[in-house]
Amino acid sequence: MTYPSTLSDLISNFRKLPGIGEKSAERMALSLIELPLEDVSNFAKAMVSSKEKLHPCLVCGSITENDLCDVCSDDKRNKSVICVLEDYKSVIAFERAGNYNGVYHVLNGLISPIDDVNPEDINLASLIDRVSKLENPELIIALKSTIEGETTTLYIKKIFEGKGVEISRLSYGIPMGAEIDYLDEITLDRALNDRKKIS
Amino acid sequence: MTYPSTLSDLISNFRKLPGIGEKSAERMALSLIELPLEDVSNFAKAMVSSKEKLHPCLVCGSITENDLCDVCSDDKRNKSVICVLEDYKSVIAFERAGNYNGVYHVLNGLISPIDDVNPEDINLASLIDRVSKLENPELIIALKSTIEGETTTLYIKKIFEGKGVEISRLSYGIPMGAEIDYLDEITLDRALNDRKKIS
Repeated sequence: MTYPSTLSDLISNFRKLPGIGEKSAERMALSLIELPLEDVSNFAKAMVSSKEKLHPCLVCGSITENDLCDVCSDDKRNKSVICVLEDYKSVIAFERAGNYNGVYHVLNGLISPIDDVNPEDINLASLIDRVSKLENPELIIALKSTIEGETTTLYIKKIFEGKGVEISRLSYGIPMGAEIDYLDEITLDRALNDRKKIS
Repeated sequence: MTYPSTLSDLISNFRKLPGIGEKSAERMALSLIELPLEDVSNFAKAMVSSKEKLHPCLVCGSITENDLCDVCSDDKRNKSVICVLEDYKSVIAFERAGNYNGVYHVLNGLISPIDDVNPEDINLASLIDRVSKLENPELIIALKSTIEGETTTLYIKKIFEGKGVEISRLSYGIPMGAEIDYLDEITLDRALNDRKKIS
């Protein structure tokens, strides 16, 4: 039994999305064609128009429909504190947390020699340029604690070392609510290294 | 923090699909806009064209691009054995199992007074019509064992009772590989009732 070709074509398109296997793709395709034609056609238009309208912010590399993203165009944000992130999803996570008043710089990748991703392949040149124009700049590097994340963190630290830039990284430690005895050794070891005095 | 409006529009479209929550919809939308424009545009076209081209088979109510579905237009299938199913997904399941040589009738729903779905709201009239034109017809009712499924099964049985139609339903029982001690009481009770002589 094969699906009608338009249907199998639709299924293979759904499979291009992350974490979508054959079964989920089938279910989504079959549900999609149950929607009214207007809904399907609006969905299709939203896909193409997102792809066409969204592009990187000219300053920070985050996603926007305009030249500058909402954060970069907000006068109330402190432009001399820059939080360096891997991707746009991390920007959203920080904005949801809601306590950060600086701006961002989205690398859109991490240095990974094994995958042939070099410093010039990620959005780093514009960071150097941005920082050079600031007085008393501060960089907060918030990359994940993998080899790629740490390589990139160290690389950025080296670039700005001795140039009057205050550089920090996020602390490693116990995630909220986690049981100490379930933590892996590396997390525990890092939480110990990053310990804070109780005042 | 709000998403750019085109992006949040795309996310809300993904949320219309079954089992897709906010987080999954965000992940899919963000991945979609990472695909090349050509892929996105093909995906969008596949959606609209599936909706436009696929429609119910004129005979059995299954999904097809033509007047008749692949099964109904296949001369090798036994047209006097009709397996009655709830939806197109069930047709696919049967065809994958691969041992059935009859044809199907897709009800596209089940009788459910509580949801105001009456016999005339599902694809039943055309089944009566089909069966009346056959010599020695056989009906195999393969609906799920819920109140709606069993109500529909009994309703169909009543329609054809005493009219020379051989009617059966699928057996209830232990699914392959299941541990007896983990089965619920109703399944066990039904497996007992549907027991078969070991020959």
